[in-house]
Amino acid sequence: MYAWKMTELNADFELIESPFPALNDDEVLVKIAGCGVCHTDISFWHYGVKTKHELPLTLGHEISGKVVAGNHEWMNKKVIIPAVLPCGRCVLCYDNRSNICQNQLMPGNDFDGGFASHVKVPYKYLCPVPEEVLDKYPLKLLSVVADAISTPYQVVKKSGLKEDGFAIVIGVGGIGIYGVQIAKITGAKVLALDISDDKLNTAKAYGADAILNIKDLDIRSTKKLVRGIASELGTLPFQWKIFEMSGTKAGQELGFNLLTFASSLSIVGFTLDKLEVRLSNLMAFDAQLIGTWGCKPELYPEVVDLLAQDKIQIDQLVETFPLSKINEIFHNTLDHKYNKRSILVPDFD
Amino acid sequence: MYAWKMTELNADFELIESPFPALNDDEVLVKIAGCGVCHTDISFWHYGVKTKHELPLTLGHEISGKVVAGNHEWMNKKVIIPAVLPCGRCVLCYDNRSNICQNQLMPGNDFDGGFASHVKVPYKYLCPVPEEVLDKYPLKLLSVVADAISTPYQVVKKSGLKEDGFAIVIGVGGIGIYGVQIAKITGAKVLALDISDDKLNTAKAYGADAILNIKDLDIRSTKKLVRGIASELGTLPFQWKIFEMSGTKAGQELGFNLLTFASSLSIVGFTLDKLEVRLSNLMAFDAQLIGTWGCKPELYPEVVDLLAQDKIQIDQLVETFPLSKINEIFHNTLDHKYNKRSILVPDFD
Repeated sequence: MYAWKMTELNADFELIESPFPALNDDEVLVKIAGCGVCHTDISFWHYGVKTKHELPLTLGHEISGKVVAGNHEWMNKKVIIPAVLPCGRCVLCYDNRSNICQNQLMPGNDFDGGFASHVKVPYKYLCPVPEEVLDKYPLKLLSVVADAISTPYQVVKKSGLKEDGFAIVIGVGGIGIYGVQIAKITGAKVLALDISDDKLNTAKAYGADAILNIKDLDIRSTKKLVRGIASELGTLPFQWKIFEMSGTKAGQELGFNLLTFASSLSIVGFTLDKLEVRLSNLMAFDAQLIGTWGCKPELYPEVVDLLAQDKIQIDQLVETFPLSKINEIFHNTLDHKYNKRSILVPDFD
Repeated sequence: MYAWKMTELNADFELIESPFPALNDDEVLVKIAGCGVCHTDISFWHYGVKTKHELPLTLGHEISGKVVAGNHEWMNKKVIIPAVLPCGRCVLCYDNRSNICQNQLMPGNDFDGGFASHVKVPYKYLCPVPEEVLDKYPLKLLSVVADAISTPYQVVKKSGLKEDGFAIVIGVGGIGIYGVQIAKITGAKVLALDISDDKLNTAKAYGADAILNIKDLDIRSTKKLVRGIASELGTLPFQWKIFEMSGTKAGQELGFNLLTFASSLSIVGFTLDKLEVRLSNLMAFDAQLIGTWGCKPELYPEVVDLLAQDKIQIDQLVETFPLSKINEIFHNTLDHKYNKRSILVPDFD
């Protein structure tokens, strides 16, 4: 098999050939159809965030593919590999919190991941892709279900957003654009906030009821405009569900300041920056901050079902490249040259 | 009737005599048995927090008493008056969030409250006190159910604390001491943190499994000791339920830093101070911050039932004074001279 390995910080990935790995009883070998490039990969490769497994390591955790060896019940199945693979046997798993299982394994972090021809994974939580979804999308595109779609799915579900609710998505990039679509499925009114007109227009095309470019607005003005939009859309002035998907300090500050009575702010994007907040506002508003990590594999079939029903769209939001161009793609991603999620497709044959 | 009215910031309360107020169809007149002195009253009287109703105003929102006029079905009933009186007809009330109802009324804030001989209130959400509880406690002492006991009750309930859980109560004063008792009822292990040995010893006597004086400890040392205590008590190193009941910046900072995987921090105490936090930790921990305001009246009967079952103790935690001493009591409370909750008992007869 072949893999493009990260050998050291900021260095070009190296193509390495190796024998197929030995499989344990609970594992299968998946021939990779596609693997998405996530901000987390860039953090490992460029920003010095440490992978749990030492280098060299194959990055990539948004993987779809076909089982080609191991447990015979899984043979030839087309699958999505969840980005979080819990143990399924611990207190947190039994308590419906498998996404934060303390024994969880993540491809491209705890073990060799998806920028390769094959990947060895435990099969317990693989998500089989039904034929009706494969009729709509080639398997390689479904790689983005792992993380880019499933993470905002869990987020919206945890928030309790309902039909008569008001969702505010801050940052409608690679994750946020699915946040908009998923929020919309609930029947709620959805407002997209971003600093890019391009991204906002895409959000509008994918279901946002209103968009607002906040590039030159301070928090007070934004808040006033958001109140006006909520009113125009006929939603209530409280119980807002705010989703911070930009992963920036400015986004978190805005989100916190948009909180009102009985509302919540979900922290989805990650930044190392701290910010100054009055936590007691949460008490006065009876409001919540909801941190959410990945997505439990148990929810993946629900996401796939939404794809089958055409309630979530992928095609115009992703772009495929040959995996052999990985070094170029990573540099371009770092330089913000892509508006769409990049999927790397193995080209070893 | 008689009332001790706040006329201006920091001024002595003035005894005012007035005719009984006219009652609307949805209101009753309650002859007051006792009214607790809360930190919120001190904030109105001394710290310049504005009451919603203009001055002069009778403060006091922790009230018990007997219905003496109005709707005949309520006549002669002994009742606790919830500190938050929702409308019962709005979206938030129907959505099980009546404690943050936007039409809510609070005695001693929206209308004349409990430092008086009588109070006029809507009867819809009054909590009748059963005889079995009156056999245990004089009605005047039950005033502390409104707020001091009901608020931490709602908090613990919202946190989802369970039998095998670990509760950390930061600040075991007037509210926190009930937080400890209520957390203990769930069967969880309870750790009390405070800077007063006296308060910690009381917490120990009222059910805390462990106590820790954090007066001279930095956050890092506290965290290490808390981990050790969690281990000694045989609880898990994650899913901690942390309750900030001190209403201080230091308490909130400690609470935020004690967060770990799948845990939550409930913000119960109030402070105007801001603090600097890395909100993204919530994402990495899949953790929550839960702000909680008052207690919905629908939960009061559950609290009264716990008193009936002797699962919550009051007597050693309160001290009664004649209402005519209100000015002295407020000054002493401001100077932190009391370790127990003060209840003012009308002495106009």
